[in-house]
Order: sequence, then C-alpha cells, then structure tokens
Amino acid sequence: METSKALEPSPDNAVVWHEDRLYLLDQRYLPERASFLSLDTAAATAQAITDMVVRGAPAIGITAAYGVVLAARDAYRSRGADWRAAIELPLDLLAASRPTAVNLFWAIERMKHSMKGLGEQDPVPALLKEALAIHAEDRAANRTIGELGAALIEGPTDVITHCNAGALATGGYGTALGVIRSAHSAGCIGRVYADETRPWMQGSRLTAWELLHSGIPVTVQTDSAAAGLMATGRIGWVIVGSDRIAANGDVANKIGTYALAVLARYHGIGFMVAAPTSTIDMCLESGADIPIEERDAGEVLACGGSRIGPEGVAARNPVFDVTPASLVSLIVTERGVVETPTAVKMRALMG
Amino acid sequence: METSKALEPSPDNAVVWHEDRLYLLDQRYLPERASFLSLDTAAATAQAITDMVVRGAPAIGITAAYGVVLAARDAYRSRGADWRAAIELPLDLLAASRPTAVNLFWAIERMKHSMKGLGEQDPVPALLKEALAIHAEDRAANRTIGELGAALIEGPTDVITHCNAGALATGGYGTALGVIRSAHSAGCIGRVYADETRPWMQGSRLTAWELLHSGIPVTVQTDSAAAGLMATGRIGWVIVGSDRIAANGDVANKIGTYALAVLARYHGIGFMVAAPTSTIDMCLESGADIPIEERDAGEVLACGGSRIGPEGVAARNPVFDVTPASLVSLIVTERGVVETPTAVKMRALMG
Repeated sequence: METSKALEPSPDNAVVWHEDRLYLLDQRYLPERASFLSLDTAAATAQAITDMVVRGAPAIGITAAYGVVLAARDAYRSRGADWRAAIELPLDLLAASRPTAVNLFWAIERMKHSMKGLGEQDPVPALLKEALAIHAEDRAANRTIGELGAALIEGPTDVITHCNAGALATGGYGTALGVIRSAHSAGCIGRVYADETRPWMQGSRLTAWELLHSGIPVTVQTDSAAAGLMATGRIGWVIVGSDRIAANGDVANKIGTYALAVLARYHGIGFMVAAPTSTIDMCLESGADIPIEERDAGEVLACGGSRIGPEGVAARNPVFDVTPASLVSLIVTERGVVETPTAVKMRALMG
Repeated sequence: METSKALEPSPDNAVVWHEDRLYLLDQRYLPERASFLSLDTAAATAQAITDMVVRGAPAIGITAAYGVVLAARDAYRSRGADWRAAIELPLDLLAASRPTAVNLFWAIERMKHSMKGLGEQDPVPALLKEALAIHAEDRAANRTIGELGAALIEGPTDVITHCNAGALATGGYGTALGVIRSAHSAGCIGRVYADETRPWMQGSRLTAWELLHSGIPVTVQTDSAAAGLMATGRIGWVIVGSDRIAANGDVANKIGTYALAVLARYHGIGFMVAAPTSTIDMCLESGADIPIEERDAGEVLACGGSRIGPEGVAARNPVFDVTPASLVSLIVTERGVVETPTAVKMRALMG
C-alpha cells in the first residue's frame, strides 16, 4: 500500500507531506515508539514544533514551510480571494513556536516571498511547490555538506558528535551526521561517540538510533565523559550541527556545544560545524545577539518520566549555547567551507 | 525514642553506627525516599558500597571501617581466639567493592594496623573504637577544610559544584560542600550551581537536597550547561571533592570534573579541590596510575528507571576522570592548602 510506504518510520522520514497532510515522526518517543503525528492546521504545526515533536533547525524550517501551506489552505477555504487577510495570525503562531533556530524564520520569509507573486486564486498549489522545493533543496544541501565535510577528514579516526544533527533534524541525510555518513562510506571514520545530550537525550535516543540504522559503529556516553575521551588522543574531530550562525561565524547550537569547542581546542582536536546556509543569519553581527531559548526547569529536574530533583529546587535550562567563531575550525555549508570563520569570510560565502 | 533520633534521615546522617549495627542512608532513592539500610555483615556492607547505597570517597572509607568491625564480630563469633583466620576473606570483599576511591583502602589498612596490637580476646571493642575515631576525625577534617577553603573565597560570588561532595559523601559536613557551607556562612557565596551529574544524578538528587536542607541558594543545571554559565562571568570558583589524589597532585573525581577544570582555566576561574588527606595516595606517582571504575553501560542507557537508548547500542560509562595538577588552583586539606600542586608541594603537605 502506498500510504504505508510513504509513512514508514525511518530516520529519513522525519517530515512527510502525504495526501494533503503533514506527518511528523514523533521524536519525543523515539526510539521506543516510532509513530507519525498527523497535522492539518498551522496552529497544530506550531504546537508540534514547540513541543519538540520535530526538532533540529533545518527540519523545523521545512515543517514551518508546510505549516504555511496548511495556513494558506485554511485561509482560502474561509476567505476565498481574500485569503491574505486570514493568513497573518497562523504565520505569527508558526514564527513564535521556537526562538533560536533561524531556519524557522528563514523558511517563513521564503514562503511569504513566494506569496507575493500570487493573485486571488487558490495559493496552495504554488506554496506547496515552494515548500517541497525547500525540503528537496535541504536534502540536496545535506548531501553536498556531507561530501565537502568528509573530504576534510583524514582517517580512519573516531569522532564525537553532540545532540542530533542527522536525517531526523533535517530534510534527510543530516548535516553533522551527513558528514559522518559520507566520511564513514569513504572509510575515514572508525567509531562515533554520541554525547547523550541532556536533558532531551537526543544523542542516546535519536543519534544512536540513526547510526544503528546506517550500520555506523556508535557508542553513547554522558556529555561530561567527552573530555576524558579526548584526552586519550583517539578523537580526530568533533562534528556538530547548528541552530543559528551569526555574521561573524559565532555558532549557536545545542547546550554543551560550547564546552566541546573549548575542550577540542585544549586537546588540539578539530571542531567542525556542518549546516546549510539557511542556518546563517547575516542580520546578526555576533552570537551575543542570538536569542537563546530557556525551556521549563522540569525538563532538567526529571528524566525518563521520573522526577529526579527535590521539590522546591530551582533549575536553569538554557537549551542552546554560543560558541565563538575563534573556537570553530570549519563551517561546512552547501556553498562551500569556511576555515576559521570571520565576518569577512562569512560575507564572502554568502555573496 | 532514642532510635528514631539517631536514625533520623538527614544529610549529616549518611553513615550511622547504632546499637551494634551499621545503618546507611540509602542514597539510591534520595530525595524521593529517605530510609536506612541496616547491615550486620561485612559482605552486605561491601555489596552496599558496590551498589552505591553509600558513595563519596570519605563516606566509603568510614563505611568500610565499620564493615571491618562487622567482619571481626563474625570472625570472633565463629572462631573465637583464632578470629584472625576468618577475617581475611570479608576484608578482601570490602576492598574489592569499588576501585577508585583510595579512602576505602586507606580505612581498611588503618583498621588492619589497629588489629596488629590486639591479642586473642574479642577484637570488636578496640576496632569499633578505631572506626568511630576514623568517622569523628573525618567530620573534624571537614570542618577544618571548610574553614581553610572558605577563607580563600573572596565574595560574594556564585560557584559551581559537581556531583556530591557533601555531608552525604563524608562523615558529615562535607568537603566541597563544607567549603561552600562555611563560605556561605561568611557571606561569601551567593548561589551554588549544582551540575546534575549524569548518570547517577548525585547533583540534582543529593547536592540539591543537602543545600536546600542548609538553606543555601541552589540551582541545578545539566552538566553541559556549566560552560555557558562560566562565560557570563558570574562564577568565582569551581569547587569539587576528590576520590583519589596522586603524589603529583593529579586529581581523580567524578566524571565531568576534568571538563570543568579545562573550562575553568579557559574562563580564568579558580578550581578548588577539597579533600581530606585520607584521599591522597602518595604511592601513585601520577593520575595515570589511578584505576578508573567503568560501570555498567545500562546506567548511561537508562534514566529515572526508564530505558533511553535503542536496543543494541554500545555505551561507555567511566565514572571518574583525572584532572592534571596543572589545572588545579588549590587542594584544600585538613592539614593545609596546596596552591598549584606539584609533587614537591604534596610531599611537603604529607610530611
């Protein structure tokens, strides 16, 4: 049956447009349960992004693009030729779903730009075409990033990755894990050490699941075990994704990335950031301007569905941090590689 | 009732000798449940140490000392004047319970030394006296460490601590938390940031519970959030305990400590190790010689009683790491403070 094939739960099927609905592989329950959440409104899509049904900057952008299609469909159904009057609110909901990943805003802007050329007729066919293009372009960008990044890895070596910047976080294939996949195919990677990535455990839940799927040797470790592993001398690269890169090359990514960058520098290990150019925000001068999402303290004070900390204790839960460009060895994008990024080099990349 | 008072669950009552039995506050279930495990054999005591009913290097040493008393009681009951013939096996069990904390071996050696002077009569009274002395001396050492460490903190400032080096980890009062308690009393500490300390969550479970008990402001954070907090400039010190310090000043402590030391150095933050001299192992030249316990992978692949990682994935679970002396600002002991430790300075301290 066609439906079951399109909606087969696999790392490369995190975001699926199928028979006029948006399906998200519900990443909150992986790897224990692999099931799709079906969405047909922009509001439900925004809620799913907030709730981390889908996560990862490029995947959030793609999801938001499909969310705009859902918004347009509802707007045209309710207001016909006057659909523009009804689309602002759902678009605002989508934009407010999460603050840090710039791909979200980038995708909504691109969809808005596409709307400009439309008349009073049904906007859905044109917008769906644009959303599918965003999705396909991201998938292609990941392949290019994978090739470019892999070419820079002299191996075989072991690597550390943090959080999940894989197929699940993108339109497919992955950014950091795309580089790792390509490098592994080329025989340049022995084993991947996946930081578990508290508090959401994207490393042990998602990255481990993805790499097992791909047959790439993977070992999970606690986030704080990375330093001791680096000291053994067996790690050649730290490879991560990004949620937003500022115009000077500062990199926002999952909490813990900054520590890894400092540790990599201390141990003389390369630090590679793999991200599509849709993650680069040339409007922000530096990482200090990137809004860092702080989520509920309960995510830190609980784990695996159980309360951990004592009642009444405070917790901080910033879910991203900023790595200064000076600690970044390489930013690998689909347009090319930036070594030791600076504002000048970033401008050159972005044209 | 006297029993209920002696066995009141509180951070200062982690290890209690009461009415001829050893009671351990079961730290596996704190803070959700505060209850004592009652032990009356050395074998059960060794198992409790292995299972982390009690943890923290000084507390393990004290527990082992009481375990030797239990071993002697059984040996004398079964063999009378020939009790020495029956005590070796239970002492070996105690020594094999965990590998890294040297206080365990130190306490057993001290108890063995105490045995030498005994004749064929019941050894229990003399050995119990020695175990109680070890316990009392540790408590007193913690107070001294607290005062010496606190005197070096110019405040008020916020600090980071890792794992639990508090009353629960010692004979009472605590090493790192002893310094923090004394410094807080002196008005030199604003807030303590407690790393949650995966995989056992000693920070969010035990340190948070202890500091709430003491009325010291505490905020829990994931281990990987410490770096971003240091970058804000509001952290004056990182203060930790230790499980074993080598003759050159290298420090073994809970996994993640080494990362904190590198990060503290990068951010120009002082890194203080608070530990009694029973933690110093002058027989080991450097940290490279310290045996690092690797526990079951399941501790990493689960949390809060729930499985997290996918079936079939590998995990590494080294539960300690080694911080080179060059990254340590201060080692604070009950005999005095060693600044930027070296082998020469450590020898001077240990006489």
